[in-house]
Amino acid sequence: MFRRFIFFSLIWLSLPIQAFEILQALPEKVDIPNNNKQSDAKIRLGKQLFFDTRLSRSGRISCNHCHNVMASGSDGLSSSQGDSGKKLKRSTPSLWNVAFQTVYYWDGRAKSMEKAISRHLLDPDIMAIPSRGFIYTRFTSIPGYKRSFRRVFKKNPRLKQISMALSSYIRTLTTPDSPFDRYIKGDKRALSAKALKGLKEFQEVQCVACHFGVNFAGPAPGPAMGMGDGFYELFPNHLGTPYDQSHKIADDLGRYHVTKDNGHKHMWRVPTLRNIAITAPYFHNGSAKTLQQAVRIMAKTQLKRDLSRKQVDDIVAFLNSLTGKRPLQSMPNLPSTPNFTPTK
Amino acid sequence: MFRRFIFFSLIWLSLPIQAFEILQALPEKVDIPNNNKQSDAKIRLGKQLFFDTRLSRSGRISCNHCHNVMASGSDGLSSSQGDSGKKLKRSTPSLWNVAFQTVYYWDGRAKSMEKAISRHLLDPDIMAIPSRGFIYTRFTSIPGYKRSFRRVFKKNPRLKQISMALSSYIRTLTTPDSPFDRYIKGDKRALSAKALKGLKEFQEVQCVACHFGVNFAGPAPGPAMGMGDGFYELFPNHLGTPYDQSHKIADDLGRYHVTKDNGHKHMWRVPTLRNIAITAPYFHNGSAKTLQQAVRIMAKTQLKRDLSRKQVDDIVAFLNSLTGKRPLQSMPNLPSTPNFTPTK
Repeated sequence: MFRRFIFFSLIWLSLPIQAFEILQALPEKVDIPNNNKQSDAKIRLGKQLFFDTRLSRSGRISCNHCHNVMASGSDGLSSSQGDSGKKLKRSTPSLWNVAFQTVYYWDGRAKSMEKAISRHLLDPDIMAIPSRGFIYTRFTSIPGYKRSFRRVFKKNPRLKQISMALSSYIRTLTTPDSPFDRYIKGDKRALSAKALKGLKEFQEVQCVACHFGVNFAGPAPGPAMGMGDGFYELFPNHLGTPYDQSHKIADDLGRYHVTKDNGHKHMWRVPTLRNIAITAPYFHNGSAKTLQQAVRIMAKTQLKRDLSRKQVDDIVAFLNSLTGKRPLQSMPNLPSTPNFTPTK
Repeated sequence: MFRRFIFFSLIWLSLPIQAFEILQALPEKVDIPNNNKQSDAKIRLGKQLFFDTRLSRSGRISCNHCHNVMASGSDGLSSSQGDSGKKLKRSTPSLWNVAFQTVYYWDGRAKSMEKAISRHLLDPDIMAIPSRGFIYTRFTSIPGYKRSFRRVFKKNPRLKQISMALSSYIRTLTTPDSPFDRYIKGDKRALSAKALKGLKEFQEVQCVACHFGVNFAGPAPGPAMGMGDGFYELFPNHLGTPYDQSHKIADDLGRYHVTKDNGHKHMWRVPTLRNIAITAPYFHNGSAKTLQQAVRIMAKTQLKRDLSRKQVDDIVAFLNSLTGKRPLQSMPNLPSTPNFTPTK
C-alpha cells in the first residue's frame, strides 16, 4: 500500500504544466484484467444487469438506483438507502472512471471491481442477495439471461459471472474530453483565465500532492501500482479543526474498519476529482453540500491552509474544468419472464 | 361512464376475425390533447424528468423506479414502495400504451395523464413532493432544467409544466408490431395454431366482452369515448368464489374509494392486455403470480366459467402474442447542479 506519498513540488513547479505526468488527460483505453476480457456481448449483458432491479433481493433497486449513470454516476445524496431501506453510513461514490482505480469502496476493502460488485450484491444493506444459490436460481429462471450467460460465459448465471459482466460494462463508463483534458492535450483556450489561476493554486496549495494522475486520485493501475494496491491518505490529516465537529469527518475511522490496524485510523482511498463539480454532496459522509465548502475544508484539514475566498473560487473554477463528456448510451431492454414473476 | 357494456357475441362469431373492429392493431399514432401539443424538445425534456430522482422528495426515486420502461413498464412486484418507503396498496400498472386510456389509476381517479402525473408527484406515498412551491424551487435551481423549461414552455418549471412534459414523453411509449398486430394486419403466419386456438377461446369464453379495442381495455379516446370517461367493470363480477379469500380480490372496493357511490363498489378500470405476458404479477393487488392463474381466476370470477387446463394454455398462448416491440431508446443525460446538491 502506498502511504503518504512524498512529492517534490518544487521540481514540478519549475516545469511547464504539460510536462508533469502528474497531470494527465484521461487515457482513451482502460486496463482490462486478463481474467475478465471484454466483448461486446459481455458489455451488453452487463448493461442489462446494471439496470435490472432483480439484482436486489426485493426486486426494487438496480445498480443505477444509487450509481445513476444518466447523471453523475451517483445519486446526489449524503447517504443512500439500499434494498433493506437502512440508510448507509457512507455516501455513494460516482461510478464514472472507476476503471482507473486500484481498489474499491471508500476504504479500499475490495481489491478489484469484480470483488467489489460481488460484495455489493451480497451486502444485506446494499443489494441484500441472501446467498449465491438465490441469485443463481433467480437468474437461471429468466430465459433471456440464461441464454445470454451461456453464450457469453458458456455457463449459467452465477454471482461470479454476473459480477464479471457488470465490471465489463462499468469499465466502459469513462468521461473523456473535459476542458482540462483538451487543455492538457494542447488546446490552450480550453481553460478560462480563472480556471488556469485555479490550476496554479491547486498545485501551489498542494492539493495535487494527493490528487494527481489520470483520475486525480493517485496512481492508476499500471507500472507504479497494481490492482489491489491502493493509494490512501489521512482524512482529516490534522485532527482538531472545527470541521471534526461541524462535519463529523473524524467520526468514521475509514480503512481501520477493514484492517483493524491502528495506523489505518482515518485513512481513506484518495477519491477522484473528475466530474467533482457534478457530484455534490462531498466527503465519505456527504457532509459538504457545496464544492466551495469542500475545498475550504480540505485545505484546512489536510494542509493547514486557510484559503481566501478568491483562492477557493479559482480552485473551484479549475475543478469545474474536470467535468467530462458522458457517452450517449442506448437503454437496454431487460429480459422478461413470460407469464410469471421471479421475485416475491 | 360506460358500465357493463353489452355485446352481441353471436354476431361477431359469424364474421371473419379481421372484420371485428373489436380486435384492432395498435394505431401508429396516439391522440394528442390540444392543450398539450407535442414537440421533440418537450418529449426530450419529459424523458429527462422521467429518469430524474429529484422528482421525489427524498431524491431517491424516479418515475422509472416503479414504471421501468427498460422492461415491462412496471416493476414486477405485487406492491411498490414510493418515496416514503410505505408499501402501496395496489400493484403498479405498466406504462406502455397508456396513451390509449381515457382515465388513469386502477380506479380511474384521474381524468387525464397530466392530472394523473401531478397526483403522483404530490402523493405522500408516491413521489411525496410536499408542495407546488417545493418543486418549483428545486427545479428552478437546476440550471439545465430552467433553460429547457423556458425554451419549451416560456415558463419556469412548475408542477403543471413538469406533468405536461412527462405526459409528452409517456405518450411516445407504445409497443407496436406484436405478433397479434402483424396477424390482424394480414400476416396469417404471425400466430401459431395454439395462439389462434386461444384467440378463438378468448372470444368464445367472452374475455373479449371487456377486453376489446386497441388496448384490449375497452374504447380508446375517440368518437366512442372522450378523455375522462372510462370503461369500468366489476371485479369480481361474481362474489363468493374461493378467490375472494385466496387472492383477496374483493378486499379493495375499487372505484368506490373515488366516488363513494355504492354502485361503484368493486368497479375497476378495465386494464390492458397488451404486454400482459411480461407484466406479472397480476390484478390490482398483484396477487396472481402467473398468467395461467390469472386467466383461470378471471374466467371464474367474471364469467362463471371453469376453464380446462388446455383452454387456459391456449388463451395464454394467445395473450403471449400481445407482447409488442419496445422502441430502442437513448438514455437521457440529466441536468447537473454544478458545485451544489439541491436535495437534502
